[in-house]
Amino acid sequence: MSNYSQVSITVVRRLPIYHRYLGDLLRKGTNRISSQELSNLTGFTASQIRQDLNNFGGFGQQGYGYNVQELYDEIGKILGLDREYKVVVTGAGNLGHAVTSYRGFKEAGFNIIGVFSKNPDNPRYAMRNMEVKHFNGLEEFIKENNIDIGIITTSKDYAQETADLYVKCGIKAIWNFATIDLVVPEDVALENVRLSESLYTLSYYLKNKEEE
Amino acid sequence: MSNYSQVSITVVRRLPIYHRYLGDLLRKGTNRISSQELSNLTGFTASQIRQDLNNFGGFGQQGYGYNVQELYDEIGKILGLDREYKVVVTGAGNLGHAVTSYRGFKEAGFNIIGVFSKNPDNPRYAMRNMEVKHFNGLEEFIKENNIDIGIITTSKDYAQETADLYVKCGIKAIWNFATIDLVVPEDVALENVRLSESLYTLSYYLKNKEEE
Repeated sequence: MSNYSQVSITVVRRLPIYHRYLGDLLRKGTNRISSQELSNLTGFTASQIRQDLNNFGGFGQQGYGYNVQELYDEIGKILGLDREYKVVVTGAGNLGHAVTSYRGFKEAGFNIIGVFSKNPDNPRYAMRNMEVKHFNGLEEFIKENNIDIGIITTSKDYAQETADLYVKCGIKAIWNFATIDLVVPEDVALENVRLSESLYTLSYYLKNKEEE
Repeated sequence: MSNYSQVSITVVRRLPIYHRYLGDLLRKGTNRISSQELSNLTGFTASQIRQDLNNFGGFGQQGYGYNVQELYDEIGKILGLDREYKVVVTGAGNLGHAVTSYRGFKEAGFNIIGVFSKNPDNPRYAMRNMEVKHFNGLEEFIKENNIDIGIITTSKDYAQETADLYVKCGIKAIWNFATIDLVVPEDVALENVRLSESLYTLSYYLKNKEEE
């Protein structure tokens, strides 16, 4: 299949949502689904869904809809979930712990094989199932283990330094939780998790509800 | 000002991004900015930015651009960041700890005044600066303290039960980190944080990079 670099990021962001709902349907034993039913589940319009999937070749059949297993597998492949990824985390605070211990990532193929900190001996940073290693050993670890994805859960004070080291060691995908705008080369994918931006949609709602 | 219920959620989601960049500019001492400069910073087109802000009355002046402080304050007001919110967290695992100890939320006016768990005596769940209370006391606590926002960082097994209790006690805004689709009444705002969906954009990138 050709590459999808021309597909917009807003389409890419909807794919995991389709994938999640299809996974739920599979677990419930549903074999086929129409774009209208997918629309009812996901809240996107049926035409939006058809248009999104047409970017990747369609998959549906007129009058039948989609085969749930097939569509789930295909979207999984498009998202690169048909392989495993080696992942490191830098920053062993609460957020680093939460990310490292979340089983869903491992189940989806993201294997966190190293956790690093500038203060690995701080007992507050001890993890249950994994040794926290010193930041000084990060470079060697990445090179030896062919790491695919680097996660940053440090304070913002050394997030850029961590990103620079990831880039230097050849990591091409960075997942950043630090509240700072990192600078990375163009060929490195940077995905920022900005929890405040999600929270502020709730204050927006509460504010505007009061004014109604 | 009138209510903005007709403003689309995708516009609302861009407001915190503008707000963050404007805050950065203020700290750097920048007094005014054009929509083109805001475009260079944020990556949204200048016309998109003007269109977004026009939903709320504009704020810009032809040939001058935007006054940074004024626009920052106005967007803050629109987002409801000009007041304080009382917040509870249910679920005292790593994620509950991370959310509770994140200073940025408090600085933005979100005061987490109670943390609840079904296992408050589990030493793993002990927090440094806050007592973890038993879930049985949650209902009374919410009613006595006029809680505005309820956060859910429980396992998915009791996320719906927690949401139901929040709704029963009159909470109108729920921030959910559990990987489950919660059911809440229409007048309750539910914002889900789906970390997997963010992570999968990176595997998508790595996958499609390889195929280029």
